[in-house]
Amino acid sequence: MERLNRKERVAAILKILSDNPNKVISLSYFQDNFSMARSTLSEDVTILKKVVEDIGVGIVETVAGPTGGVKFIPKMKDEDKFEFLNELCNKLTSSDRIMPGGLIYVNDVIFSPEITNKLGILFTNYFIDKQPDYVVTVETKGIPLAMMTARYLNVPLVIVRREARVTEGTTVSINYLSGSTKKIQTMSLSKKAINKGSRVVFIDDFMRAGGTAKGIIELMKEFESRVVGIGVFVEAKTDRKLVNDYISLLTLEGVDEHEGKIIIRPNK
Amino acid sequence: MERLNRKERVAAILKILSDNPNKVISLSYFQDNFSMARSTLSEDVTILKKVVEDIGVGIVETVAGPTGGVKFIPKMKDEDKFEFLNELCNKLTSSDRIMPGGLIYVNDVIFSPEITNKLGILFTNYFIDKQPDYVVTVETKGIPLAMMTARYLNVPLVIVRREARVTEGTTVSINYLSGSTKKIQTMSLSKKAINKGSRVVFIDDFMRAGGTAKGIIELMKEFESRVVGIGVFVEAKTDRKLVNDYISLLTLEGVDEHEGKIIIRPNK
Repeated sequence: MERLNRKERVAAILKILSDNPNKVISLSYFQDNFSMARSTLSEDVTILKKVVEDIGVGIVETVAGPTGGVKFIPKMKDEDKFEFLNELCNKLTSSDRIMPGGLIYVNDVIFSPEITNKLGILFTNYFIDKQPDYVVTVETKGIPLAMMTARYLNVPLVIVRREARVTEGTTVSINYLSGSTKKIQTMSLSKKAINKGSRVVFIDDFMRAGGTAKGIIELMKEFESRVVGIGVFVEAKTDRKLVNDYISLLTLEGVDEHEGKIIIRPNK
Repeated sequence: MERLNRKERVAAILKILSDNPNKVISLSYFQDNFSMARSTLSEDVTILKKVVEDIGVGIVETVAGPTGGVKFIPKMKDEDKFEFLNELCNKLTSSDRIMPGGLIYVNDVIFSPEITNKLGILFTNYFIDKQPDYVVTVETKGIPLAMMTARYLNVPLVIVRREARVTEGTTVSINYLSGSTKKIQTMSLSKKAINKGSRVVFIDDFMRAGGTAKGIIELMKEFESRVVGIGVFVEAKTDRKLVNDYISLLTLEGVDEHEGKIIIRPNK
């Protein structure tokens, strides 16, 4: 790489940090690649801290010690968050989304890379302090959202299947009761998927009574691991939930099939 | 936003472009947000073109005309690509990955955000000129990879289901013959998912005979749409494929269960 001047180098360092969210990159990596002195690098990092704060996209953090360096953590400002969630609610209230049984069509929203990317940043902001080792989801519709969250938390994604598959080797399966339909359901996960003693965050697109989340808590016990956070995009308003401690971004208050009305609001 | 000096501004512009891959952002957006003259912005863009080329992460492109502006397209250099694919092959040849029936365990690789992120950039490089309107995949294991590809191509992701679901409204289902097992399989997609006359890229984690890819081509015909590209992470070496025109990154030459050997190589 040819020697870059300061304005080029500052942009280059931010690009590299931003492409590796929540990953500590050693100072010597930058010193070697950009042939620069430690003091110059410190000045560049100071500039970057100001830039990301100024445009409100996250924070650049210096990590001290022998394994130290610098890392970028994406963040969304509160005002941007509420604007974004309000826009989503507006999008989701159009009456042609109403499906039989009081359900709403959300695939275009939860499969949109632009939207799930932002949702992934939001969940990262909620769960980064929990220091998870994995993001876990259950197939199928929550996968894009869980993937983006895993990307920004910089941990592996784990996808729990509805039935055991031959490509997963030895699996652990549990049966659980769906909270709303009261049907027995199965979930299955490869024994290789999660190390013992892990901390996991469970991400899903939708929560009704919370049966799936409760199932995941049980399944993780089989792996001697612990659910340290639960995040869902939309929760349906219900009398009671089977889990207490969770984050939901939107609440579906109700769907009126006759009137063609959907009531959905962002949570505080 | 307070006024940034040039080195801060250049970094800020690159961050914004890079967070919105393959999306044209108007020059006036930057002029308004950073209160700068058009000529100054042009100079900044020239600097950025040099930076991204220099560190080998993509290209910054100026788009002329009334809907014009500037956009960032991520790219991986050929040398980085071959190093990356070789590393993946090394990772994938460890004998504890062998599953019954000559299959190999790949979930940790295809669910790793760091790896799928890079694979998404590779597929974007292959398919961006096809100007797709959607990235399509079939549940479940290819979803993270398809999501990352959709993110960098900046198009919606579409997930085809194995069976029709009530949350998808009216669906179109087709039956197709699995190329390797010769079993009848079903795939199903909401009628809302794809507009008529669309161009789609199909992304999947694994291809044996290509039955699923062929099924997707048939399914897209029902939507009066066309598959303009097929990309798979790993293809198994087979006598013949049911589709001709596809990109695969790695070829699984063979698995020797007795010897505990996996032969897998990057494609040229």
